[in-house]
Amino acid sequence: MLEVKTPEEVLRLIETEFKPLGRTETVPLAEALGRVLAEDVKAEEYVPDFDRSTVDGYACRAKDTFGCSDAIPAILNLVGEVKMGEGAEMPVPRDACVYVPTGGAIPAPCDCAVMIEFTEDYGDGTIGILKPGAPGMNLIFRGDDVFPGKTVLKAGRVLKAQDIGALAAVGKTEVPVRPRLRVGVISTGDELVPADQKPGPGQVRDVNSPMLAALLRGCGVEAVDFGIVTDDEKLLREKTKAAAESCDAVLLSGGSSAGVKDAACRILGELGELLLHGIAVKPGKPTILANAGNKPLIGLPGHPVAAYFVARLFVLPLLARLEGRTLRNWPVRAVLSESLNANHGRMQLNACRLEETDGRLTATPIRSKSGLITQLAGADAYLVIGRDCEGLPRGAEVDVFWN
Amino acid sequence: MLEVKTPEEVLRLIETEFKPLGRTETVPLAEALGRVLAEDVKAEEYVPDFDRSTVDGYACRAKDTFGCSDAIPAILNLVGEVKMGEGAEMPVPRDACVYVPTGGAIPAPCDCAVMIEFTEDYGDGTIGILKPGAPGMNLIFRGDDVFPGKTVLKAGRVLKAQDIGALAAVGKTEVPVRPRLRVGVISTGDELVPADQKPGPGQVRDVNSPMLAALLRGCGVEAVDFGIVTDDEKLLREKTKAAAESCDAVLLSGGSSAGVKDAACRILGELGELLLHGIAVKPGKPTILANAGNKPLIGLPGHPVAAYFVARLFVLPLLARLEGRTLRNWPVRAVLSESLNANHGRMQLNACRLEETDGRLTATPIRSKSGLITQLAGADAYLVIGRDCEGLPRGAEVDVFWN
Repeated sequence: MLEVKTPEEVLRLIETEFKPLGRTETVPLAEALGRVLAEDVKAEEYVPDFDRSTVDGYACRAKDTFGCSDAIPAILNLVGEVKMGEGAEMPVPRDACVYVPTGGAIPAPCDCAVMIEFTEDYGDGTIGILKPGAPGMNLIFRGDDVFPGKTVLKAGRVLKAQDIGALAAVGKTEVPVRPRLRVGVISTGDELVPADQKPGPGQVRDVNSPMLAALLRGCGVEAVDFGIVTDDEKLLREKTKAAAESCDAVLLSGGSSAGVKDAACRILGELGELLLHGIAVKPGKPTILANAGNKPLIGLPGHPVAAYFVARLFVLPLLARLEGRTLRNWPVRAVLSESLNANHGRMQLNACRLEETDGRLTATPIRSKSGLITQLAGADAYLVIGRDCEGLPRGAEVDVFWN
Repeated sequence: MLEVKTPEEVLRLIETEFKPLGRTETVPLAEALGRVLAEDVKAEEYVPDFDRSTVDGYACRAKDTFGCSDAIPAILNLVGEVKMGEGAEMPVPRDACVYVPTGGAIPAPCDCAVMIEFTEDYGDGTIGILKPGAPGMNLIFRGDDVFPGKTVLKAGRVLKAQDIGALAAVGKTEVPVRPRLRVGVISTGDELVPADQKPGPGQVRDVNSPMLAALLRGCGVEAVDFGIVTDDEKLLREKTKAAAESCDAVLLSGGSSAGVKDAACRILGELGELLLHGIAVKPGKPTILANAGNKPLIGLPGHPVAAYFVARLFVLPLLARLEGRTLRNWPVRAVLSESLNANHGRMQLNACRLEETDGRLTATPIRSKSGLITQLAGADAYLVIGRDCEGLPRGAEVDVFWN
């Protein structure tokens, strides 16, 4: 019999027992948002590929302007104009300048750009420079942003909008990413009917399948719905096996009666190596984890709230592990609006609502009997009460996690 | 000429000048994740629709067990078994009990369930109860979770996985949501080429269109790409007009040269009422906002980093306003790993990397010349330095926002 493990032990187990899948596929840039980068992206070119002005003004040699001032301007001959999006191949003799717009290319002999505000156009083909330039002033040099070989993004990064921008900048329009994980979702229980059916006597609607599918989809994972299986061990074995064969992981949920729990445990133990039977967390204790050749088979609690928390706290990091990325989930600080009892000896999770008052965040725990889904509906966040905490008083500062 | 406004003034302007669109469409539950709920959802039934046991054990009348103990068990006649997913219509006489699994229905005359651990099956059709029950013990009553008329979720909620679960629980499989906003994205600039083209002399790839499209899509908004327009006021006017006609909002970006900026300002002012010309934020000052009959027309800075921050800080709240929801963006606390200069008089935004060391989050500002997209690539978060701050020392506690 496996022992109940602490949350920290479970997270360590995930790292030691499962390996990143290491697969790669290529997607167009427009579809890369939220995907996991499979390889480091290195630039192959210079961005920009030319020296650029950061101001509207005049490109010139800085030394031709040294010592100038409002009283004694440097007089430069205007010998040309740089157009946006065109090269700046023109010759620029000594004591000459070229008009350049913001973002325009700088002709090679010039080493600075003087803002138009510090110049005067005399209308006779000469420009007065009222403030001396300095080499490099108001310029972005070729390759300042990116140069060949520079790592733009690292493998494992979940691509955000700004990363899409950076990939566009370096012309990486085909992006190597981790294929989306396929995760099979199975609900078990004689009492369950699909959400679109009216429950008969003793029946309830299946909450876990649509909730877990949504949680997975929200993390970029393809959820494959294997439907509701009645409390029949043979059927459940067949369905679980089929899911394990066609998916990267299987989430088996429901089965609140002791018989079904035992069956789920037997089935997962047959299909893989049982790693875990019970997590010291409330709610969420009756959780099973097996490893079938680097495929996680997970038995979640039947209670929707417990299933939700176990999926968030343990299944999402497990899937992140398979994708070779780190999951970031940092708390925000809030003040507890009412006291909260804790269950000494088990880490406790509590959904809460957050409200801003005078720039401070107040967390109000949502209280309900265990297992009621409305504890989660409309919840903004959840808070974690440590195993050794005996309760928190009103006004305590707590860490809350958005959910 | 409109004055430069502070970020707070801009956010207030958004609330006062734009109204929620108030449109509604219906989507299947499986597609409702991330959508904005258009109406309060009230339950029409009881969940559960029957009294349920939360344990495996025996349902009975509590008073038949009063006074019992390990030494003197209450002896009850076992008169039946409740099956999962079936009704519990059986009669239960006085001094009798019924086996009930976790989640099973409780027969009407019973008012508690005794955990199997506190019972003994004598094998002769009687069960010994070793611990007295109490009315309501180990029961979830009909409607404990939800009852007709109870508000399950409020309009304006961005639906999360747990909300999908709650909607499934109450059988709401067709969900009234706000239609996805359509936002037109236009890039301007003679120097711009699409990301899949190699820039010629003086040219750079268009970063803003793909980056802004990704930012919008990440928020559930449909981004409509109107491509790159050269610095031609007539063309730009036509394209902006077409975008405004077919979209709920228009994002015009690029145009780093003074001429294009002026043209963008004229065009937005012709198509709508100019509300804003400049925000006191660094980067991001050259931002224009016009209102064309509750359609925001936004001129973003050409620099990708500035465009990114303005889009995040002002465009996303503006779109949230049109959708009738509140945007939540709470910071996390981090310790600054190096000192940071600030630009007194303007709110300043700085991308940073976050690292966890000993349970503390360290923020390292990413330093680069203004406007380089690689400042954002791989950034974990950004920090906001207030207008009146003259700089932050190494080791200062700062609020950072994930980006």
